[in-house]
Amino acid sequence: MKPTLRLRNASLAAAHKALKPSAALLERVRRPAFLNKLAKPEDLAPLFRNDDYIGWSGFTGVGYPKMTPTAIADHIEANNLQADPQTKKRFNLFVGASCGPEVEDRWARLDMIARRYPHQVGKDIAKGINAGRIAFADKHLSMFPQDLVYGYYSLNKKHGDPTKPLDWAIVEATAITEEGHIVPGASVGATPEILQCAEKIIVEVNTRTPNLEGLHDINQSFVPPNRLPYLITEPKDRIGVTAIPVDPDRIIAVVESDRPDNTGPNAPETDESRAIAAHLIEFLSDEVKAGRLPKSLLPLQSGIGNVANSIIGGLADGPFDQVQVWTEVLQDTFIRFFDSGKLSFATATSIRFSPEGFDHFYSNWANYKDRLLLRSQQVANSPEIIRRLGVIAMNTPLEVDIYAHANSTNALGSRMLNGLGGSADFLRNAKLSIMHTPSARPTKSDPTGISCIVPFASHIDQTEHDLDVIVTEQGLADLRGLSPRERAPVIIEKCAHPDYKDMLKDYYDRALFECLKRGAGHEPHMLRNAFKFHTNLMEKDSMKVDKWD
Amino acid sequence: MKPTLRLRNASLAAAHKALKPSAALLERVRRPAFLNKLAKPEDLAPLFRNDDYIGWSGFTGVGYPKMTPTAIADHIEANNLQADPQTKKRFNLFVGASCGPEVEDRWARLDMIARRYPHQVGKDIAKGINAGRIAFADKHLSMFPQDLVYGYYSLNKKHGDPTKPLDWAIVEATAITEEGHIVPGASVGATPEILQCAEKIIVEVNTRTPNLEGLHDINQSFVPPNRLPYLITEPKDRIGVTAIPVDPDRIIAVVESDRPDNTGPNAPETDESRAIAAHLIEFLSDEVKAGRLPKSLLPLQSGIGNVANSIIGGLADGPFDQVQVWTEVLQDTFIRFFDSGKLSFATATSIRFSPEGFDHFYSNWANYKDRLLLRSQQVANSPEIIRRLGVIAMNTPLEVDIYAHANSTNALGSRMLNGLGGSADFLRNAKLSIMHTPSARPTKSDPTGISCIVPFASHIDQTEHDLDVIVTEQGLADLRGLSPRERAPVIIEKCAHPDYKDMLKDYYDRALFECLKRGAGHEPHMLRNAFKFHTNLMEKDSMKVDKWD
Repeated sequence: MKPTLRLRNASLAAAHKALKPSAALLERVRRPAFLNKLAKPEDLAPLFRNDDYIGWSGFTGVGYPKMTPTAIADHIEANNLQADPQTKKRFNLFVGASCGPEVEDRWARLDMIARRYPHQVGKDIAKGINAGRIAFADKHLSMFPQDLVYGYYSLNKKHGDPTKPLDWAIVEATAITEEGHIVPGASVGATPEILQCAEKIIVEVNTRTPNLEGLHDINQSFVPPNRLPYLITEPKDRIGVTAIPVDPDRIIAVVESDRPDNTGPNAPETDESRAIAAHLIEFLSDEVKAGRLPKSLLPLQSGIGNVANSIIGGLADGPFDQVQVWTEVLQDTFIRFFDSGKLSFATATSIRFSPEGFDHFYSNWANYKDRLLLRSQQVANSPEIIRRLGVIAMNTPLEVDIYAHANSTNALGSRMLNGLGGSADFLRNAKLSIMHTPSARPTKSDPTGISCIVPFASHIDQTEHDLDVIVTEQGLADLRGLSPRERAPVIIEKCAHPDYKDMLKDYYDRALFECLKRGAGHEPHMLRNAFKFHTNLMEKDSMKVDKWD
Repeated sequence: MKPTLRLRNASLAAAHKALKPSAALLERVRRPAFLNKLAKPEDLAPLFRNDDYIGWSGFTGVGYPKMTPTAIADHIEANNLQADPQTKKRFNLFVGASCGPEVEDRWARLDMIARRYPHQVGKDIAKGINAGRIAFADKHLSMFPQDLVYGYYSLNKKHGDPTKPLDWAIVEATAITEEGHIVPGASVGATPEILQCAEKIIVEVNTRTPNLEGLHDINQSFVPPNRLPYLITEPKDRIGVTAIPVDPDRIIAVVESDRPDNTGPNAPETDESRAIAAHLIEFLSDEVKAGRLPKSLLPLQSGIGNVANSIIGGLADGPFDQVQVWTEVLQDTFIRFFDSGKLSFATATSIRFSPEGFDHFYSNWANYKDRLLLRSQQVANSPEIIRRLGVIAMNTPLEVDIYAHANSTNALGSRMLNGLGGSADFLRNAKLSIMHTPSARPTKSDPTGISCIVPFASHIDQTEHDLDVIVTEQGLADLRGLSPRERAPVIIEKCAHPDYKDMLKDYYDRALFECLKRGAGHEPHMLRNAFKFHTNLMEKDSMKVDKWD
């Protein structure tokens, strides 16, 4: 045994010494041997080395570990480790999606994050990414777990077990079964693959959250050439078990946690979000009338935010019945949708309710538990299942261009907000791919200084080949079957803010004229002016250009 | 019965009168009642009305109908119909992918095409699209057939059966079974769905091509909410039958055809294509050594062109064994790959051999028939299966940018070449997504006037979230797990032509400096200069810019 490893095992033994489990914990940890692994997070904190590869559970700020990450931050802060390059610790952090700000944003603030894939939410972490301190890459959320297992994120990993992409997994559970399997909290995300990939595992058993056993459908995940079809043809279909199997020998510590998921309130609806929702509900009603959708619609996916809230609220009041949901994350309005009796079944990889939403949900658990399943993000966001079910996908872009390319991630082409998330998993494969956005947003000096309809999207995450419908509070553009030269006038007319319509029409007309003249008029652009909205915004705090040339 | 319909049925009766089938045709058409539907194409030609929605069989210039489209063009030309707006006929044409130039390009030349989805190859059709005469939209080839069935392409269809997206299907068969089912030729493409969607069907039975019965795997295609998993876990798995079921009452005419598929020679290999292939084969060998790929690799997809030819040729000579292929189209080099004994099974939606290739293939049919299957493009390009199998996808872009967004379709952002094809079906879902291109291309005045590595792709079809590897004759950039700020230097260093390396580095360095300064440095760009390579090319016939500001 190498000296360092012996030393580290000695530290671990110290961490395990003489901890007595609480009554609550005894109820949740049904494999007695694991109680010998009880540890205090502050004793685990020093075990983490600079440049370690660490995976956490968690998705949309729910189900992430709280105790150990906090203890690591406390340890680093208390010992002032970051002040000296010799003692500084920076980690490579992999989580299915975002975590609570008290851990993720705090780590960023303390400059503890060298790399963070594939999604994040938080002021300080975004600041670190955009300041060049944190390496970040967003990836389709369905693909992140498989790429992690493939070893694509650890090609340059320098220490630790070379067969394991991660040195550590720190995951939250609401129970541990007799077999030592992990029952997650209100999200599954990439936890199964993170556990599969980790050399050492720390399980935080949260005794404050109810034991959510039965809520999850955990399937075994294979890699090619041994992958099998997902035998799901309806949202309610189960293909797995209720807890995550894991090699017990790799669990080196169990920590009790009593901290809640630190979710904030939901985004309140506005007149604008209600107007967008009204256009969309009219469109869906027309599709039902035309016989292209059943009255129960097809399984819905909706993003996060006030427009999503208005849409789901509107559906609860609308003429639809026995609706089903196949989505990535459920937010508060789904409670209302369930309670309306119109939502028959919902499945997601995460439940991201407000604190009040969670209170209501847990208090009325019996009403919901048979109409709800949580799956891993590899399954919830699977192109295979999304396409098979014919999902109706609805997401928000930063901006859309006149040919229906959309930017979901980078403001002015370069400043990362949160990342791609699952938007492209859904929009590429849905039967109806819908993006909704306000037509304009304010800047400091101009209430409509940013047009969300632009000549050329300054970053492209969703292509013209992926979107069927664009909707703003101004109206809805149905782009199905249209060529680019047909799309542009429709998007400008139906979706652009009145302050920008003439400018956009003028761009399109000039581009059309110039491109036809040189026999290049399929998707007309004036490349020299394609980003003039954006450069104008940088220079003059408004996208309103005076003239094109 | 409406007078026009009576009139048209009378014309149809005239077309059927007293035709005697040839001996060859008698052998191919095994449902006797269909012999009563024998017609001459010139008698069918006048039945086609202006604005009709027409679907053809065919994919990559193989298996398309030749007789009827030619007769329609002859009829229009002979009667000078296009000279007068009152008699002019322009059609909406839907084909899985491209057709032979003697029909598709001729229709374009005669201005007979109002709309053409979702892919095309041909000088005149591209000219018509870029001149604004032909409405064209490219679409993921896996999605085109489903969107056709959904009615997305016929939302504005003004006449004919409102329940049928197409007025006509004209399809080529190499046999008709006792049940009246259609045995396709050397492509399947979208033929099953085109038949499903058509009010009236004309079958051209090609007696020159061998009867290819047994080569095809035709599965039934459902729409949501009734879709089922594709139960395919290996390229050789069959999930269907050997001919396309079709409602016999909708077949209004059978035409004998003796014309071959009009394919040209294959693109010859060059030093450049061999250099690209060598980099790729080294990379794949390294992946096998690292244990991330088995020695048989994973099923391969490769595009069309000389680089694809060099790669497949190189694999035949390489250290791999029992290789399998899951691809869209097979070209001549696959014959060599089969003959090398290293290719154990291949499946595609089309075989696009040169005339000599087809001769060899048909003469040695017994050697190949048990190692080959053709499927519909909805299956061959299915994200579900591509992801499950872990396909290794290799395709050619027009240009790739320094962050790995790629343009597959529009030169200088606006001039359509052929369309997206299946590139994004494969690149989004493959286990290894590879794009290969020469690092530079010539213009009239500059042998390296076009850099295929650019600061910002002038059109984006594949996003940074979709590509793992970029390779040029200069070298190979392995982008797996890299952030955008890590990707740019690697792509420039490994892939760019030496004439452009400094310019690109300078762009990146300046963009990085400017973006970090304003806290927006995730994916650094200078939007005002992002298309300067392209505008310089338009103005000065070369992408070589003098300075950035």
